[in-house]
Amino acid sequence: MTPTPTGRPVRFETLARDPHSSARTGRLHTPHGVVETPVFMPVGTLATVKGLTPEQVRATGSTMLLANTYHLALRPGEDVVAALGGLHRFMDWGGPILTDSGGFQVFSMADRTTLTEQGVTFRSHLDGRKLELTPERAVQIQEALGADVAMCLDQCPALPASKGQIADAVGRTVRWAGRCKAAHTRPDQALFGITQGASHADLRAECAEALVALDFDGYAIGGVSVGESREQVRLALEVSTHLLPEDRPRYLMGVGRPQDILDAVATGIDMFDCVLPTRNGRNATCLTDLGPVKLRNAAHRTDPRPIEEGCDCLACRRFSRGYLRHLFIAKEMLGPILASIHNVAYLQRLTRRIREAIAGARFVQLRAELLEALGR
Amino acid sequence: MTPTPTGRPVRFETLARDPHSSARTGRLHTPHGVVETPVFMPVGTLATVKGLTPEQVRATGSTMLLANTYHLALRPGEDVVAALGGLHRFMDWGGPILTDSGGFQVFSMADRTTLTEQGVTFRSHLDGRKLELTPERAVQIQEALGADVAMCLDQCPALPASKGQIADAVGRTVRWAGRCKAAHTRPDQALFGITQGASHADLRAECAEALVALDFDGYAIGGVSVGESREQVRLALEVSTHLLPEDRPRYLMGVGRPQDILDAVATGIDMFDCVLPTRNGRNATCLTDLGPVKLRNAAHRTDPRPIEEGCDCLACRRFSRGYLRHLFIAKEMLGPILASIHNVAYLQRLTRRIREAIAGARFVQLRAELLEALGR
Repeated sequence: MTPTPTGRPVRFETLARDPHSSARTGRLHTPHGVVETPVFMPVGTLATVKGLTPEQVRATGSTMLLANTYHLALRPGEDVVAALGGLHRFMDWGGPILTDSGGFQVFSMADRTTLTEQGVTFRSHLDGRKLELTPERAVQIQEALGADVAMCLDQCPALPASKGQIADAVGRTVRWAGRCKAAHTRPDQALFGITQGASHADLRAECAEALVALDFDGYAIGGVSVGESREQVRLALEVSTHLLPEDRPRYLMGVGRPQDILDAVATGIDMFDCVLPTRNGRNATCLTDLGPVKLRNAAHRTDPRPIEEGCDCLACRRFSRGYLRHLFIAKEMLGPILASIHNVAYLQRLTRRIREAIAGARFVQLRAELLEALGR
Repeated sequence: MTPTPTGRPVRFETLARDPHSSARTGRLHTPHGVVETPVFMPVGTLATVKGLTPEQVRATGSTMLLANTYHLALRPGEDVVAALGGLHRFMDWGGPILTDSGGFQVFSMADRTTLTEQGVTFRSHLDGRKLELTPERAVQIQEALGADVAMCLDQCPALPASKGQIADAVGRTVRWAGRCKAAHTRPDQALFGITQGASHADLRAECAEALVALDFDGYAIGGVSVGESREQVRLALEVSTHLLPEDRPRYLMGVGRPQDILDAVATGIDMFDCVLPTRNGRNATCLTDLGPVKLRNAAHRTDPRPIEEGCDCLACRRFSRGYLRHLFIAKEMLGPILASIHNVAYLQRLTRRIREAIAGARFVQLRAELLEALGR
């Protein structure tokens, strides 16, 4: 792994711009290869996209994965991952990987969380062990894991929260971002900042400007998809993206509904991650252009059709809805596996169509057509 | 699917004979391709080898699968399988398939089983539904499923059983075999008889001779691996195989321990099936030439080695024991998947080595070496 020629570990180039929105296509150059954006990153929480081999993940058209720092630090421990050659070697994924900072899980999953300016102390949701996550520790864990992109530790307050609480979180997020940057040493790993501010335009702007001044390799929009309205999300996105530099990738964390991806791309977002395709897949719900297909439905009993006509994923090329229904009813592992493959492939096909539409100045039409078919 | 030139749906040719034992290699020609014997058939109970795509099963070197009539008749029902194009199309397995008769599961899994000369009535282990399995019905279900090889309904008495009870079962098994043969109509599907007789040489001989007189496409040794001693199994095998025609395949049902395969091949067995590789795989126990490797052991925490050096399966080519241990500890589906792939590949490699050793007149040495390393 060597830094790209710019001296930065990752480099982003913008390719096409949609004339009718802020949508854009680009290329993210990383130590483990080039990623076409907008990109959807499947989630490999514990260094595995649940149920799929890396080969199967690659066959869906996926190029970059996300892995969770909180989960991996607890189990098997970043020392084990490092001893076994780092995340890429450990999980046999030769392409780029991004790790989150662990902050989101600490605040949403851990027990007895105590927040101070220094960091967060909490108890593991697995065994009650008392642990501390500081900006420096989040960076240290991520350097041991060795992903191409690491994320700053941020504070994402649970909603509803007062404006004062959000402002506090913004201030702390900026100060922690500075400490993360100071602590980060790996020249072959990028570090992205995370903007907070909920749906307060002034706080979003304050946070984005302060992070931009710290000069990160990319910027994430955090604190979205935690219970706000669609309108609040749009607002947060528009304010943030306009203040973020054109030559850095913009990443919307935790968002993966097709409708939400279409909306976010329109505001200039380049990167997405979400557990939705695999979680829904395990639950027999499949993404299609015409909305969800629920494979357990009795209507599919002898249905010879694939999940979605025209889809070139393994599940759709080789298996009928009738067979897939049987697998789910019989609780066979292959059901969740095939439905997950379809759902990830669906989102990769969606982002491919989005990229082609932006390049062809047809993004607004594609978005309108798909939103009409999908339903809001 | 067309019958082979002999007019039989399957044809067996013997290739090499071991000069020092009854071991032999052969080729089983079926409507869905040629199978080199001795062959190990992974079990796809509910029309799926648990956790593996057909492509992954094929990559282990597997050529022929077994599916369970009892399970498929209950769920999704043979009518659903037939409506969706038969078992090969349903589960996307283009190679040969064998279905058992359902008898073994009826006697071992169903509730309130009542046996008469006509057949067996029982209650489904899933929903208590009252059902009947007769020789004719077993054939009818298997014709609807459409495997390359169907099995006669036999009576496999639970041990311990008196010699009188075993003799009764032998008589009924022979009469039922005649009824199965009379009921069987599909010209593109073979029908195998199943010999019973426990470890009574005279009953085994009586059963084998009576079944041979009925002229089946192949013969199975049933009632083995239900609690007898190793010596009793060897005796049953030797008596049976010597009375079975040279030009028909011999199939030992439900046996898959490496040691037992080596023993059985020496008596002239050509075909095996067993849930052991996938069941053990799901339980983190891996087959190797040096005996089982238990992946959950703490010793593997940072072990960079594959499950077995020199194994060319996906799990061994790409992943460390440390990673596999992590998957099992974290209860990730990929652990059972990769361990199952290894175990099936191990048995395919074992049967390949057996075939090569027989062809090279080295089978006795191979067997001795492996039994020494594996332990009894």
